[in-house]
Amino acid sequence: MTQSTLDHIDSTLDQRLERLFEFIRIPSVSTDPDHAADVRKAADWLAQTLRDMGADAQVHATTGHPMVTGHLPGPQDAPHVLFYGHYDVQPPDPLDLWVTDPFEPTLRDAGDDKHITGRGASDDKGALMTFVEACRAIIETEGALPLRVSFLFEGEEESGSRSLPGFLAKAAKDLTCDVILVCDTDMWDRDTPAVTTMFRGLVGQELTIRAGDRDLHSGMFGNAAANALAVLADVLAALRSDDGGVSLPGFYDGVVPPPASWGNLAFDEAGFLSNVGLSVPAGEADQSVLAQVWARPSCEIHGIWGGYTAPGFKTVIPCEAHAKLSFRLAAGQDPVLVRESFQAFVRNRIPADCSVEFSDHGLSPAWAMDASNPYLGPTLQALEAEWGQSTTCGTGGSIPIIGALKEHLGVDALLVGFARFDNRIHSPNEKYDLSSFHGGMRSWVRILEAIAK
Amino acid sequence: MTQSTLDHIDSTLDQRLERLFEFIRIPSVSTDPDHAADVRKAADWLAQTLRDMGADAQVHATTGHPMVTGHLPGPQDAPHVLFYGHYDVQPPDPLDLWVTDPFEPTLRDAGDDKHITGRGASDDKGALMTFVEACRAIIETEGALPLRVSFLFEGEEESGSRSLPGFLAKAAKDLTCDVILVCDTDMWDRDTPAVTTMFRGLVGQELTIRAGDRDLHSGMFGNAAANALAVLADVLAALRSDDGGVSLPGFYDGVVPPPASWGNLAFDEAGFLSNVGLSVPAGEADQSVLAQVWARPSCEIHGIWGGYTAPGFKTVIPCEAHAKLSFRLAAGQDPVLVRESFQAFVRNRIPADCSVEFSDHGLSPAWAMDASNPYLGPTLQALEAEWGQSTTCGTGGSIPIIGALKEHLGVDALLVGFARFDNRIHSPNEKYDLSSFHGGMRSWVRILEAIAK
Repeated sequence: MTQSTLDHIDSTLDQRLERLFEFIRIPSVSTDPDHAADVRKAADWLAQTLRDMGADAQVHATTGHPMVTGHLPGPQDAPHVLFYGHYDVQPPDPLDLWVTDPFEPTLRDAGDDKHITGRGASDDKGALMTFVEACRAIIETEGALPLRVSFLFEGEEESGSRSLPGFLAKAAKDLTCDVILVCDTDMWDRDTPAVTTMFRGLVGQELTIRAGDRDLHSGMFGNAAANALAVLADVLAALRSDDGGVSLPGFYDGVVPPPASWGNLAFDEAGFLSNVGLSVPAGEADQSVLAQVWARPSCEIHGIWGGYTAPGFKTVIPCEAHAKLSFRLAAGQDPVLVRESFQAFVRNRIPADCSVEFSDHGLSPAWAMDASNPYLGPTLQALEAEWGQSTTCGTGGSIPIIGALKEHLGVDALLVGFARFDNRIHSPNEKYDLSSFHGGMRSWVRILEAIAK
Repeated sequence: MTQSTLDHIDSTLDQRLERLFEFIRIPSVSTDPDHAADVRKAADWLAQTLRDMGADAQVHATTGHPMVTGHLPGPQDAPHVLFYGHYDVQPPDPLDLWVTDPFEPTLRDAGDDKHITGRGASDDKGALMTFVEACRAIIETEGALPLRVSFLFEGEEESGSRSLPGFLAKAAKDLTCDVILVCDTDMWDRDTPAVTTMFRGLVGQELTIRAGDRDLHSGMFGNAAANALAVLADVLAALRSDDGGVSLPGFYDGVVPPPASWGNLAFDEAGFLSNVGLSVPAGEADQSVLAQVWARPSCEIHGIWGGYTAPGFKTVIPCEAHAKLSFRLAAGQDPVLVRESFQAFVRNRIPADCSVEFSDHGLSPAWAMDASNPYLGPTLQALEAEWGQSTTCGTGGSIPIIGALKEHLGVDALLVGFARFDNRIHSPNEKYDLSSFHGGMRSWVRILEAIAK
């Protein structure tokens, strides 16, 4: 019976794509307060999409953006799966680097494949819709699903998932399940889908350095007066040691080495970097690039601003300087300790007459899946049936909600990814390959069938 | 005859102030292309002001903002003075820190004095007008000046004086004079006007660091990919050594020690810093604060921008980072060599797969006046007659045009200042004390009389 559903997906690809386009057109940028109504619109669109499939769907208000839940019935003796996805997207800027409107998706030829281009095409609207459309296709051909499926869609994944723990605490009973399925990760390579079994945690921080009580003239005060931007540059530079590591005291305490099995993965370090115009690995000199991005903790500066930044020149000594940065954490690191260590590091380093203020942007530990999970084997086999091969892997990104889901629902998550390495998520011209979308839907049909057995 | 002019100034202060207000209301921000028409308007206003006084005045187009020249006749056997001033102003931002509109000047009680508040109230519109109004008052009371006076007003002083050298080369004959008078500097203290006999040079630079060909996701690439902001922070931090000095190789070669006579000036280091909310001198630990700001070269960061700076959070590794900075130079330093040394320093420090692009924002040597200048003594005496005392001093600011004036016109400049230390030039709420304006006009009447003898 799987085959008839797969055939149905193949023959109705255009309609499925059009629904994804509708979804991408909603500019649900969760971090930008100006887009709050768009985020709400995306939540409503999803709830209606689930209802159209016969689900009991609801939009739940939170102190942040809404949560969407839904339930589709299935046999009581089969496992109950919960699918998690997020309907919010990253800001599209810098806008001038997009070749098309980020919120007007296009489908264009790209060699052997086609590209769906738009903000969220991959992360996570395209990926999320592979699962939703797989369920829809099964219902359309079979009349019902082979197992019970619940949905949880979040609108704050790109801005810290602040409302999620509180919501899960209240909704745990409604979201009871045997396993959580997530689609927000990459394939290992163009032809090999992957189940991600570990990822890094995140500590997001914003800081404001203040020096003096006003901007000053560099001719009158230059040298003698503390310069907030110079103090900030000094602090940020000091966070990295000369060997490419993070220099916070105790930062690497307890960090677990990468799994030995990764040594078997054919990873092209030079190609990984040259694909984005780089050639020199920037992290710890004694670590492979794969270990640097999957297993080793890091510190990255996301934004700096302060002083005179308009055209022309102004010889000012600015009294305020700002930065946003984050630490990616490895299994074994305590996010709270990292945050405290960072704040103490900054406070200790700035001159006595300067001050610093911090604000938090997310805090989550790294995660590694239990290797004995009973759903891992059937999922890898279903993926292999569709693609010819499959693998497990790690990822350097953070999916902070996995920890929260496990804590509140008591089950682990299976992270199945169809995104390609070069999807430019969070960057201009984000895209999702048509083969990711198409193969993703077909894969989920097979996975649900495999898990239901 | 001086006394009748001084009395006339005292009795007509309001009209003189109103003309200054008119001038300040023109937002002649030279560095901002959006204000080009305002800059032109200020030039026209000045030319008309000179014509109203009987001068032969002209506005000269340049490749940048216009030059204004004018000539007022006087006895052929007396010296011929050229007064230089600038009619452009710094940008007013950050606007939210102004307590009044920067271009709607106000006069408000401030203890024993009153404050003229507005962008350019001190630098240089208020100061410039002390001289213009002094000439006007002499003509109003005496019918003519005791010596020939020419005027040169520039509209690019706050943005690099790019057109000045070329203009001076062409206009040198029209601007022939025996001495140049400039009013753009500070008093030594509230009660002591000063002739500034040395100031620092300037090398202004903007730089853009590029790392990779696109913004990247810090989860996917964090650690392994060069981060343009981290590279920039590293370069900027490395420009200052741990002892507060500038770490460019050879930077201090040839720098002349501060004059021993400065040791006699009663300078309140703690008060200088506490007045602006600071307490720790930030420059070379073995130099006095006065030496740090007047005599020692420096490096200050004026602006940094790059990556995600809007509200919220974006875990991006930015591919571009920008900064504006300048070096203040001491006598003995070659600005061209400093620029080359800086650019080489940056190129040597950035990773091999990153690039840097520079643009120039001004280049001028430091300057020290010839101690035997015959006009220095009479000027100091005239100042003492008005204020009870006077002094020579240095300044940490740069007046790049002095070098150009000397090169093209062959004479040195006398820098006479009535600005107060706390005038907040280049900062929000710039002000000029009414006593500076009033005493400045009276001083110039005395100085012109003294020089004419």
